[in-house]
Amino acid sequence: MRSLKVRATPNAVRFTRQDVADLARGCAFLGSGGGGDPQAALMEIDAMLANGGSVEMIAAEALDDDAFLAGCGWIGAPTVSHEKLPAGREPLQGLRKLEEVTGRHVDAVFPVEIGGSNGLAALGLALRAGLPVVDCDGMGRAFPESQMVIFNIRGQSAAPAILTDDKGTCVVIDTADNVAEERLARAVSVTLGGVCHLIEYPADGRQIKRNALHGTISEALTIGRALRIARERGDDPFAGLFEALRNCGQFSHAAVLFDGKIVDLQRETRGGFSVGRAVIDGFGGNGRMEIDFKNENLLARQDGAVRALVPDIITILDRETAETIVTERLKYGQRVKVVGASAPHALRTPEALAVLGPDAFGLPGPYRTIESLNGWGT
Amino acid sequence: MRSLKVRATPNAVRFTRQDVADLARGCAFLGSGGGGDPQAALMEIDAMLANGGSVEMIAAEALDDDAFLAGCGWIGAPTVSHEKLPAGREPLQGLRKLEEVTGRHVDAVFPVEIGGSNGLAALGLALRAGLPVVDCDGMGRAFPESQMVIFNIRGQSAAPAILTDDKGTCVVIDTADNVAEERLARAVSVTLGGVCHLIEYPADGRQIKRNALHGTISEALTIGRALRIARERGDDPFAGLFEALRNCGQFSHAAVLFDGKIVDLQRETRGGFSVGRAVIDGFGGNGRMEIDFKNENLLARQDGAVRALVPDIITILDRETAETIVTERLKYGQRVKVVGASAPHALRTPEALAVLGPDAFGLPGPYRTIESLNGWGT
Repeated sequence: MRSLKVRATPNAVRFTRQDVADLARGCAFLGSGGGGDPQAALMEIDAMLANGGSVEMIAAEALDDDAFLAGCGWIGAPTVSHEKLPAGREPLQGLRKLEEVTGRHVDAVFPVEIGGSNGLAALGLALRAGLPVVDCDGMGRAFPESQMVIFNIRGQSAAPAILTDDKGTCVVIDTADNVAEERLARAVSVTLGGVCHLIEYPADGRQIKRNALHGTISEALTIGRALRIARERGDDPFAGLFEALRNCGQFSHAAVLFDGKIVDLQRETRGGFSVGRAVIDGFGGNGRMEIDFKNENLLARQDGAVRALVPDIITILDRETAETIVTERLKYGQRVKVVGASAPHALRTPEALAVLGPDAFGLPGPYRTIESLNGWGT
Repeated sequence: MRSLKVRATPNAVRFTRQDVADLARGCAFLGSGGGGDPQAALMEIDAMLANGGSVEMIAAEALDDDAFLAGCGWIGAPTVSHEKLPAGREPLQGLRKLEEVTGRHVDAVFPVEIGGSNGLAALGLALRAGLPVVDCDGMGRAFPESQMVIFNIRGQSAAPAILTDDKGTCVVIDTADNVAEERLARAVSVTLGGVCHLIEYPADGRQIKRNALHGTISEALTIGRALRIARERGDDPFAGLFEALRNCGQFSHAAVLFDGKIVDLQRETRGGFSVGRAVIDGFGGNGRMEIDFKNENLLARQDGAVRALVPDIITILDRETAETIVTERLKYGQRVKVVGASAPHALRTPEALAVLGPDAFGLPGPYRTIESLNGWGT
C-alpha cells in the first residue's frame, strides 16, 4: 500500500528480474572495487521476485517534504561477508527499530551507497517491508567509512543509527558526531563478527530532495544493462560501458587506465576493513600498475605516477567480459582491465574532499581529477 | 516524591556526608583492587549532599514486585577514568533513555557492583534522579566483565543496556546474550575513549528480591565505618576491618595474606582493561607475593603457591592506615598489606564459578576457597 506521503509519478519503475541482474552489474562497477560483491544480494532479491514479490522505484520528487525515509546497507569487511551470511531478517528488524525509536512510520527506503552489494540492499529491504525505494544514494559509488557520504558533507545527522545482526542483536547509536557514529558502528560490526546491517541517515523528504545524489539507481541500471546488451550482441562490453557512463552524465569521463595481469596481491582484514594492494603487470612488458585499497580501490599508480585518486572511481574488470572484480575476489593471475571514471561533481567540492578525498585516507594529495591526471580534456 | 511501588520501611537510611565517606572506604576494600577509585565519585556526591541533596537507601523488601529498577555503574579501564573525567550528566541521560525505550518509569536504582567507584555510582544517580537506592548489588565486590554478575548467573537479561558518554553520545544494546552485551559494551567504551556510563540489568522488584546480593551497600558502609572509627581511636585499623567483615556475615573469613613492599609492577591498558601484575617482597626476606590483576586482583601467589583466587577478595592496603590501594594507584615502593576475604556464598556455586571463577579468566584452577588454601578452618 502506497504511503500518502509518496505521490504517484509516471516515471516510477517496477523492477523485473532482468532489471535487478542489470542493476547488480552496474552497482558492482560503481563500487570502485568495494561495497561487497552483489551476487548474494542479487540471488536473494531474484528469489523474492520469482515468488511474486514486487518492488517499485520512485524519484525523489515523488516524496512529500515530510515523508520519512531510512538509509540502509551493510557495514563491515567484504571479505567477511562471503563467509558470514545474513539471516535475512536483519534489515527489517532495523527498520522496525527505527520506527520504534523515532515514533515515525517509514515511507520509503534508499541505499546509503549505490556501489556493490549495498546498491541492492535497499531493494531487498523495500521488498520485505512493502515500501518503494527512492532513486538516489549518498555516495554515487562505495566508500569504506560511513561518514564518507553526501548527507554528512551536507550537514545531516547519521543518528539514530541502528545495527542488527543474524542473531537478533540490535544496537542503537545516537550521537551528533557522524565520525563518532562511524567509529561506534565499526566497533560494533567487528564485535558482531565483522559484518552487520546498518540503518542510518534517516531523513525526511525535504532532506532527500536537497541532499541526496539523485538518479543513481537508474544510472547503475543503465550501466549494467549496457554491459549485458553489449555481451549479448557480441560487441565490446567496454565500449558499451563507456557509452553508458557518458549517457549517465554524472560520470563524465571514463576510460581504460591499464590492461594487464595481476602479479601480486596483499590483503588483510584490519580494523574491520579489507586493506591491501594489487599489482598488475602490463602485457608485453608495458609497465606496472599498483592499486591500493581499503574495501574500495583508492589510488592507482602506474610506474610510480598517479593515474587516479579517490573519490574518482577505480574499478578492476575482467578484460574479456568486463565483469567487475571486487577487491575480495581479486586473485593472482587474473587478466584485467582497470577502468577509471570521474566521480560525481558533488564529491569533488572542497567540503566533500575534506571528508572523502585523498587526505581523509592519508594518501598523498592533493586531489587531482582523473581527467587532468590523464589529459582526457574536459 | 516516593514512588507508589516502593513501600516505606522503618530501616530506610538517609545518607549523611560521613556515611558516604565511610561507604567509599568500604567499597574500595570490596573492590578487590578494582571498580575504580571511589574518590572522584565521593567528591561529587559529597558536594551534592552539602548543597542540600538527599538520598535514601531502602531494603529490597520495600519494593513491590512490579517496581522497575535500573542497575548502573561505569564501564572501562580504571586507569583511564583518572584522566577522562565524566561530564556528570551521563547517568541521568542513560536512565531517561531506559525509561524511553522500555516505556516504564524507574522507581529506584541499584549498583551493579558494590566494589570501588561503582559502589557509589548508584548513589550519585539516585541523588540526581530523586530516587532511592536499593541496598543490594550484583557482585558483592567488583569484577572486570559485566556478565560476571549474579543477575546473569541467575538467568536475567542485561538488555536493554545503555551507554552514555561525556559528549552526549548514547548507545542502546539489545541482545539476549549477556556475554555479547559485555563484548559490545566493551567495544563501545573503548571507542568512546576508554570509559563511559552503563545502565544495564533493568529488573522488576521480584527479580531484585530473588536474585540480587542483599545488604551489600550496608555492609560496605559497616566496613568503611569500622576503618574510620579504628583510626580515630588510634586502634589497629586492620583489627577493625576484620571485625567488621566478621559482622557482615557475607565475608566470613578474612586475614592478612602478606606484608611487604611493592618491588615490581607491570601494568597496561589492553582491550579496555587494566591488566598487569604486582610483585611484593616480604619484609626481612620473608618471601615474595605476586598478584595478577585484570582491573581487579584475581590471583595471589606466595613463592609460587596459590594463596587466594577469584572470586575471593584480594585487596592491597596501605600497611599503616589500611587505606585500600586500587590497582591503578599501585606504585613501586609502597608498603602494603595484602588482605584476603572469602566471597559471598552465592559467588561460589558451580554455576557462579563457571561465569566468574578462575576458568573464566584462564587462570590455573580449579577454584579453592581462600579458607582451605590458607588452613583458616571454617
